[in-house]
Amino acid sequence: MDTEKYLTEWREHYRHDLLDDILPFWLNHGLDKVNGGVYTCVDREGKLMDGTKSVWFQGRCPFVYSFAYNNIDRRPEYLAMAKNCIDFIEAHCIDPTDGRMYFEVTADGRPLRKRRYVFSECFAAIAMAEYSKATGDRSYAEKALKLFKEIVRFISTPGILEPKYLPTQPAIGHSITMILINTASRIREVIPDPELDRQIDNSLELIRTKFMHPEFKALLEMVTPEGELIDTINGRVINPGHCIETAWFLLEEAHYRGWDEGKGKEIKEMALQILDWSWEWGWDEEFGGIINFRDCKGFPAQDYSQDMKFWWPQTEAVIATLYAYLATGDTKYLEMHRMANDWTYEFLPDPVYGEWFGYLHRDGSVAQPAKGNLFKGPFHVPRMLIKSQMLIDEILAVHVRK
Amino acid sequence: MDTEKYLTEWREHYRHDLLDDILPFWLNHGLDKVNGGVYTCVDREGKLMDGTKSVWFQGRCPFVYSFAYNNIDRRPEYLAMAKNCIDFIEAHCIDPTDGRMYFEVTADGRPLRKRRYVFSECFAAIAMAEYSKATGDRSYAEKALKLFKEIVRFISTPGILEPKYLPTQPAIGHSITMILINTASRIREVIPDPELDRQIDNSLELIRTKFMHPEFKALLEMVTPEGELIDTINGRVINPGHCIETAWFLLEEAHYRGWDEGKGKEIKEMALQILDWSWEWGWDEEFGGIINFRDCKGFPAQDYSQDMKFWWPQTEAVIATLYAYLATGDTKYLEMHRMANDWTYEFLPDPVYGEWFGYLHRDGSVAQPAKGNLFKGPFHVPRMLIKSQMLIDEILAVHVRK
Repeated sequence: MDTEKYLTEWREHYRHDLLDDILPFWLNHGLDKVNGGVYTCVDREGKLMDGTKSVWFQGRCPFVYSFAYNNIDRRPEYLAMAKNCIDFIEAHCIDPTDGRMYFEVTADGRPLRKRRYVFSECFAAIAMAEYSKATGDRSYAEKALKLFKEIVRFISTPGILEPKYLPTQPAIGHSITMILINTASRIREVIPDPELDRQIDNSLELIRTKFMHPEFKALLEMVTPEGELIDTINGRVINPGHCIETAWFLLEEAHYRGWDEGKGKEIKEMALQILDWSWEWGWDEEFGGIINFRDCKGFPAQDYSQDMKFWWPQTEAVIATLYAYLATGDTKYLEMHRMANDWTYEFLPDPVYGEWFGYLHRDGSVAQPAKGNLFKGPFHVPRMLIKSQMLIDEILAVHVRK
Repeated sequence: MDTEKYLTEWREHYRHDLLDDILPFWLNHGLDKVNGGVYTCVDREGKLMDGTKSVWFQGRCPFVYSFAYNNIDRRPEYLAMAKNCIDFIEAHCIDPTDGRMYFEVTADGRPLRKRRYVFSECFAAIAMAEYSKATGDRSYAEKALKLFKEIVRFISTPGILEPKYLPTQPAIGHSITMILINTASRIREVIPDPELDRQIDNSLELIRTKFMHPEFKALLEMVTPEGELIDTINGRVINPGHCIETAWFLLEEAHYRGWDEGKGKEIKEMALQILDWSWEWGWDEEFGGIINFRDCKGFPAQDYSQDMKFWWPQTEAVIATLYAYLATGDTKYLEMHRMANDWTYEFLPDPVYGEWFGYLHRDGSVAQPAKGNLFKGPFHVPRMLIKSQMLIDEILAVHVRK
């Protein structure tokens, strides 16, 4: 394979998909010019099927449009989209009684549901950080940092977030641990603070010592506070796409620290280990693609969607394999990229109405064709398209044209 | 079709499946002789994959074994299974601080999770009522009635059950409305009380005036307190299996009141309307079977399992169609029974390890083969096998051999 040709062609493909398909789709069908904010519950054609606004997406969307602005194309409409969502968050998505954010609000911003997690806050924080970088307006960096400190307070102060489970079986979760790495590192890019570094170090240590389980060659989703397996259906869950996402968050951190030696090298090796393990669990030898869930002891996974192929694990695999190739120059990762990318492009893009399908059966056939809901919208696909272009530029400079 | 032959053969088939397969399976693989109670998280072979106990099943299981004892075969091990689970409920599944029940407990009965619903309490109440009938021990009937009054207090006292959604969009739910009909009517059989009748009347009225929506020919899962459509993804959900279950709960109530005239006839007609509508939405013309979810405006349903075939909607369809035939003598319902029953028997029973699969793809292929989890165990399948035998006996007496 001609690596330079392969990578150059795909960089162009990603650029075209981002600028001519994905970003315009949500500007046309998502942007709410009346109330502000962004809609995501749209059907295959982009027609609004529910005006409920996902608070996750009021943060994810401005992150993505700012990220595209900062790295791909400085179009003013991207900044306007970002500002529009951030304004909506500040006006409507924060509970004034305690500073925590909602999960769903109505089209015009009245609160519908608040959950016991801080993901809304994490997405809002990375949006503000990226928007600060795009505009040079430091006040948004400061808001992002302030929000981050609130997040840490919410999760570390007993009594603020009501736990889902009673104290009988204490557990810690991979989700919050990994997202705080990404949240802190995005904010650190615009406003350094020791609390950000501390959180990243804490999360890395938790992943290394508690969530990584070499006896299963797996990164688990929940474990006891001591890092032991909880031997139940939920405790044995492997979410390969999620682990692959963590792998590239770690590669990003390793890269930042310099991955050829010391702590950076350690983090890189941990990331590659997680990627290799998770690919082994997640890649479907029979139909291709990254499968939703596995059980680390081989029992049947009980999530109803366990054998489906969702869009986002595929996009994480595309990013993570490029990152791993950049980190190592090992062509095995380029081959894994080709496998993940080929599968993604065979089944996910909608050739008729644009944007990508999200919910496929195991064999790649479309289970239901809506382009968005409270969990799918302008985030994983455009993030993959942006990040992959950036990675290819770096790969070409480091490994191919050197 | 020779109706008598068809029904007689299926009655024998149901009897055999119940007594020689389903009930023994859970006595062998579910009954916990060490701690009491019943396990349900078992794999295809019946091997325990999670010791967590579903509180729903600590009530559903003794209901089913008592129901079999009362109506099919008075085997002492059925009573012992029932007593074992009811004792476990009383010892471990009730929160002493407020009298509400848990959702999950550990194998030895320590509380893991409590949810904001009263389904655990409803299943415990029908278990106690049916066990009282089986043993003649009136104290369990009294306990069932007391628990019912607690349930009504929990759901009608503001502040006891924390709502999932904020007050912005008030909603009422079909689930609790329909289950209270069944709960109250099971208890009424052993201990009459005006509060039971009042609840049944209230639920019937809510279903008729709020949840039934002729403009969609559908019974909706949630509506505004005024009965209006909530025009969102969740508000437009049709769960055909759930509606078909409601249809036979209503036929049961109509039968009890005498369905040939007056209020009984009204309820019967309402039930048949719901069954006809829901069959129309739920029956999969392409692959057969009752599908999981539809959207009443035809948007893509967003539940991940929307196009799957779960075991329990099929079992509800088998019961409801027999009930409708009993109520009407209309052979259209006998034909619907044949369709539902043929599909059920083609895809659900496991010919190798016994019991039935629960989670099928749209085409009937097995998505994952476990025999149980927190939501599947000894309930829908044996209830269908018991109830269908009872209905066939009555049909043979009323319509066939008259």
